[in-house]
Amino acid sequence: MDLNSDLGEGFGQWTLGEDDDLLGVVTSANVACGFHAGDPSIMRRVCERAVAQGVAIGAQVGYRDLPGFGRRFIDMEPAALTDDVVYQIGALAAFARAAGDRVRYVKPHGALYNAIVHHEEQAAAVVQAVLDVDRTLPVLGLPGSAWLELAVDAGLTVVHEAFADRAYTATGTLVSRRLPGAVLHDADEIARRCVAMAAGDPVPDADGGALILTPDSICVHGDTPGAVDIARRVRAALTDAGVQLASFAR
Amino acid sequence: MDLNSDLGEGFGQWTLGEDDDLLGVVTSANVACGFHAGDPSIMRRVCERAVAQGVAIGAQVGYRDLPGFGRRFIDMEPAALTDDVVYQIGALAAFARAAGDRVRYVKPHGALYNAIVHHEEQAAAVVQAVLDVDRTLPVLGLPGSAWLELAVDAGLTVVHEAFADRAYTATGTLVSRRLPGAVLHDADEIARRCVAMAAGDPVPDADGGALILTPDSICVHGDTPGAVDIARRVRAALTDAGVQLASFAR
Amino acid sequence: MDLNSDLGEGFGQWTLGEDDDLLGVVTSANVACGFHAGDPSIMRRVCERAVAQGVAIGAQVGYRDLPGFGRRFIDMEPAALTDDVVYQIGALAAFARAAGDRVRYVKPHGALYNAIVHHEEQAAAVVQAVLDVDRTLPVLGLPGSAWLELAVDAGLTVVHEAFADRAYTATGTLVSRRLPGAVLHDADEIARRCVAMAAGDPVPDADGGALILTPDSICVHGDTPGAVDIARRVRAALTDAGVQLASFAR
Amino acid sequence: MDLNSDLGEGFGQWTLGEDDDLLGVVTSANVACGFHAGDPSIMRRVCERAVAQGVAIGAQVGYRDLPGFGRRFIDMEPAALTDDVVYQIGALAAFARAAGDRVRYVKPHGALYNAIVHHEEQAAAVVQAVLDVDRTLPVLGLPGSAWLELAVDAGLTVVHEAFADRAYTATGTLVSRRLPGAVLHDADEIARRCVAMAAGDPVPDADGGALILTPDSICVHGDTPGAVDIARRVRAALTDAGVQLASFAR
Repeated sequence: MDLNSDLGEGFGQWTLGEDDDLLGVVTSANVACGFHAGDPSIMRRVCERAVAQGVAIGAQVGYRDLPGFGRRFIDMEPAALTDDVVYQIGALAAFARAAGDRVRYVKPHGALYNAIVHHEEQAAAVVQAVLDVDRTLPVLGLPGSAWLELAVDAGLTVVHEAFADRAYTATGTLVSRRLPGAVLHDADEIARRCVAMAAGDPVPDADGGALILTPDSICVHGDTPGAVDIARRVRAALTDAGVQLASFAR
Repeated sequence: MDLNSDLGEGFGQWTLGEDDDLLGVVTSANVACGFHAGDPSIMRRVCERAVAQGVAIGAQVGYRDLPGFGRRFIDMEPAALTDDVVYQIGALAAFARAAGDRVRYVKPHGALYNAIVHHEEQAAAVVQAVLDVDRTLPVLGLPGSAWLELAVDAGLTVVHEAFADRAYTATGTLVSRRLPGAVLHDADEIARRCVAMAAGDPVPDADGGALILTPDSICVHGDTPGAVDIARRVRAALTDAGVQLASFAR
Repeated sequence: MDLNSDLGEGFGQWTLGEDDDLLGVVTSANVACGFHAGDPSIMRRVCERAVAQGVAIGAQVGYRDLPGFGRRFIDMEPAALTDDVVYQIGALAAFARAAGDRVRYVKPHGALYNAIVHHEEQAAAVVQAVLDVDRTLPVLGLPGSAWLELAVDAGLTVVHEAFADRAYTATGTLVSRRLPGAVLHDADEIARRCVAMAAGDPVPDADGGALILTPDSICVHGDTPGAVDIARRVRAALTDAGVQLASFAR
Repeated sequence: MDLNSDLGEGFGQWTLGEDDDLLGVVTSANVACGFHAGDPSIMRRVCERAVAQGVAIGAQVGYRDLPGFGRRFIDMEPAALTDDVVYQIGALAAFARAAGDRVRYVKPHGALYNAIVHHEEQAAAVVQAVLDVDRTLPVLGLPGSAWLELAVDAGLTVVHEAFADRAYTATGTLVSRRLPGAVLHDADEIARRCVAMAAGDPVPDADGGALILTPDSICVHGDTPGAVDIARRVRAALTDAGVQLASFAR
């Protein structure tokens, strides 16, 4: 099982998240590429540390929107979106190589992640960017999303992810953040669910039913100290349960 | 002899220069990488056209300063400058590869070009960026500059450039743009000087003396229609004189 | 009758439009405020020239999107949009005052203009910005838009605009730019339509019917030399027809 | 005696400093205006809270350099600098007015603050910006700086500031941050020095001599929780010593 998390999301003088702590927990680092967060010096540092710890480097690509942290949908032309994503992957690739490794996968961020669940033109645009850069790069996303379906059609390797701390509906979609209970906070419960996912066992859905998720990667968060503790708990629980932790990209 | 020129210096809705015309004249295209000018879609387009016309793609790297077009010195930390340059080269590399080629050289732009003639720390920082990305990349600049001297020390391949339309002092430095006669406008004179440079013959310096410049590459401008005409005239004169035009990078 | 046009839409080294020519034609200048185009020095220059020529200064506010020139819808929080618009009006106000006048009206730009025809939350956000800055400022927009209706409800003065060079449907909405004939190019026809609008006479709609538009202001374009010629023709035709040209804001 | 501090220096998703705590300590808030830090929503919030607590709002203007947090000298044209400063003051003025007050003074930030101690052209450019916007606005800075001397010459009201936690040389200039002991950390010592400054009594200089500083305002920092504690201690010590705390701008 792979554990992925967003890293390198500061900018200039501003910091965000516990990058160093998290690099001791995850097996895959989604590194921000400068369009929604991240600057060249942060990218270098995260890449160097990821390589030192054997964590796979992924390109966390987003809309060009520093003021909105990439969390606002931008209704841009698909061709321009392709170009923006190519640019970001290329920039990160230089730091990954300088650190002695290379970019190993691509994961969209924030509003782009959400948009391309359904927005077929933008989803196709991001697929095209990966094809342009390197068609052997795996892509990470939500099972059933337009993004992953179009990626499969294009011959890309897709990686299904589940969220450690999010509630799911009976049909396997995420409960909207606007609804109560959408985000789980109990570290024990979160760890238990992740072990079940890894074993192929069912987890409770939001209606109390049994839902089987079979992710290739589990996403944990690290933007608060508490989140890092939960991430550590998830890792420990998986290890205790005999689950082998390793990046899908190795 | 190589002819180089700055290309891809628009941004978004804004255009600058006659990229398409110029790609029919030069053998090396200094492509702006998004920090002082250039956006991902422009970078893609210039790379595709350069490849189609057999023009070598170079990374024209600059300070992060869109409002100032990279023409203002920024007193930044050398380490941060290295990272900014790595980022830019990496981003362009993705478009060069998508177009079927790769980045073939690095040329600093504007205030950065001028700063690293003398500013040793920033010069070393740009050299370090090239070492980090690919130590086989040639670097283009002013003979005698700290930039090229440090590059030689670091084992990089250096390319000496001369300017087609600039007056030189008796010691081979550029006449300051603030002085009269610093920029030449007579197409015949400019073409004649370029032919002389290519032959190893002397050109007149600003004091009327004879100056021998032995550039590996001649820089022509293309930011006005008139400039493109001059560039065409230079190319024709060199060809008529039997000078073989080809990128140094092939 | 008022003639308005977008001005000051360059950025840094990049120019766009024929500002100086257009200031001799229009009575109201929609000055870009730095978020989609325009920089502080351009804003100063346009304000100074507008005041010198007796042209009213309006704040042309847009999404924060230089790479997209404000032409891409951004699904941002209404409160953040209000703040972005307040910021832009305030910045322009400083230049208007330095030039000896003040901001006289507000007109949204590009994707924001289009969004708030229907998007009530964003329309209300822009109205709120005007209320926050100065509730005596007139607002300019499309008759029937959510923007103008909410502005009326809030007690703002609204100015209805018509487009000199756009075709209208039988119900008075703009023909989509994706359809043929959406944009008119015949200077005679355009001038004739403007004179009819000013007189309260019908103009042909896209289906050949008769449509009565009663604008308070007519928008002309100036982003190409040809457009400036058309704008001049419109002004001359209106003057010849005895229509008094003056800003609604005086 | 006035106490001033930098506030509103976050951007988008990123926070910096303890704005709310600090607004309970200082009498003057130097509010970042979006060029080196601060975004429109942060500016609104800080202005509203400052007004609610009776704290004077000042424009903390800087170079346009979000990645460098305004801490890097930019060798820009004076006219462009004037325009950048006018823009920033204007933008903040809109939020100050929306909050029921107005901008009460101007204080340059970071590298601009340092540059205009000696750089006469840039100092004159910032003075010109204040003249352009409102010549009744006091300006805050270092005694003896070109900035304050040119401001006096131009008829502006100048406010001398001293730093609570910085060591001074025998001639009253700041000890360089690169030297040991440049920044004081002992809250007791800092408070004691501030009380002495307010009383017109000497404080020890870096060589052990006695230095009399007569500031109109003392600058305290708030970018760490420890800094806020020191600021509180300074305020308490001044109040205990019978010093009346009030903005110079009231």
